[in-house]
Amino acid sequence: MAVARSGRDDAPGATFEVTARTEIRRAERASYDRELVYAILDEALVSHVAFVLDGTPFVVPMLHGRIDDTLYLHGLPATRLIRHLRGGADVCVEATLLDGLVMARSSFHHSMNYRSVVVVGRAHLVRDPAEKLAGLRAIVEHVAPGRWDDARRPNRPELRQTHVIGIPVQEASAKVRTGPPVDDPMDLDLPVWAGVIPVETRLGRPSVAGVDGASADLPGYLADLVELEPAAAND
Amino acid sequence: MAVARSGRDDAPGATFEVTARTEIRRAERASYDRELVYAILDEALVSHVAFVLDGTPFVVPMLHGRIDDTLYLHGLPATRLIRHLRGGADVCVEATLLDGLVMARSSFHHSMNYRSVVVVGRAHLVRDPAEKLAGLRAIVEHVAPGRWDDARRPNRPELRQTHVIGIPVQEASAKVRTGPPVDDPMDLDLPVWAGVIPVETRLGRPSVAGVDGASADLPGYLADLVELEPAAAND
Repeated sequence: MAVARSGRDDAPGATFEVTARTEIRRAERASYDRELVYAILDEALVSHVAFVLDGTPFVVPMLHGRIDDTLYLHGLPATRLIRHLRGGADVCVEATLLDGLVMARSSFHHSMNYRSVVVVGRAHLVRDPAEKLAGLRAIVEHVAPGRWDDARRPNRPELRQTHVIGIPVQEASAKVRTGPPVDDPMDLDLPVWAGVIPVETRLGRPSVAGVDGASADLPGYLADLVELEPAAAND
Repeated sequence: MAVARSGRDDAPGATFEVTARTEIRRAERASYDRELVYAILDEALVSHVAFVLDGTPFVVPMLHGRIDDTLYLHGLPATRLIRHLRGGADVCVEATLLDGLVMARSSFHHSMNYRSVVVVGRAHLVRDPAEKLAGLRAIVEHVAPGRWDDARRPNRPELRQTHVIGIPVQEASAKVRTGPPVDDPMDLDLPVWAGVIPVETRLGRPSVAGVDGASADLPGYLADLVELEPAAAND
């Protein structure tokens, strides 16, 4: 079972095989490096999951978790996505980290700095109870490391109301753009500002506004997550 | 032509019709309000565009712009997405703004605060030169209002190397979650911190590192965008 694997002795190679489904045309931005693909998936809080229903494409935002070479999604059994994926459907999972607005002197050379991943694979319903729980743990820990051991774990009725979907990461590619704008030589003297405006995603100050009942102190693992001093965290 | 429309006299209703393709199961999070759908699309810097090739779903991150009830995408004519969409394919465009991590006392009630949009429609290649230019302008202005009039506009060879895709927004829905976690009554006394950790996306200090040639001063519209004092903006 994927969950029990800790070493990488039986892992596939360091790069994904380039397939017709994952090949990227702009080769200078392409990577099939497994570590890079996983680093992007692990940093992205949300992924975008595409599937086909009656020939129509759909894409919805989802939380994900990863254990080794398997992505996990979860949802209520009755949702359209889960009903479709549990049957073993093809799925495409994309995650994108936006790093900067790239402002060139010409409109044409404007761009974004970003790191994105596309995974194409076949989904399956996770039926094994231990793997199902591990998948849920991976999703919770992906959002906030340390949370799984703190929060109350799912009970049997809750587990019945939750489906976990596994997607083996066998075909995947990453796309990365970094660095300044690249203008044509003829444009270098134009009196137009050129550079990069960074896009930053960060966590703000935790809030208990509107929370029912007495609240516990903010635990250390959440203070670490938002990089707060413990004193400030409990304001 | 959509581009020339300024009033909303001929606009469809204030809400999108609920269709089998856009209906959201969790009714308490669903909205079909046109203004909300457009506000989310306009705030999101990146959208996620799904399409079907040979029965397989794909989703890629794209920049978008909007004029009235039309979304515009652009790309190199040879890319897989553009080659597919220019033929008049069904497409799904999703955009998501992540607002907070919702930490409940139970794993089961963890959630995210977010605002997301899904648009399902049929893409077409924009052939009219004026609408094509307007679509490109909408994409640039969406990223940085004021930029189109400052940067050098696309010349004829650049326009030939760029395809603009239009997608009429006729079927769309929004999904929104706000507010604190909602725990089961039985969990309210658990000694687990519960609350919301905001997720904030902001623009950082503009950088000219690595930019070829002499740089102009940061213009006011970009200083406004990153909310900098003019003096600080030119450090």
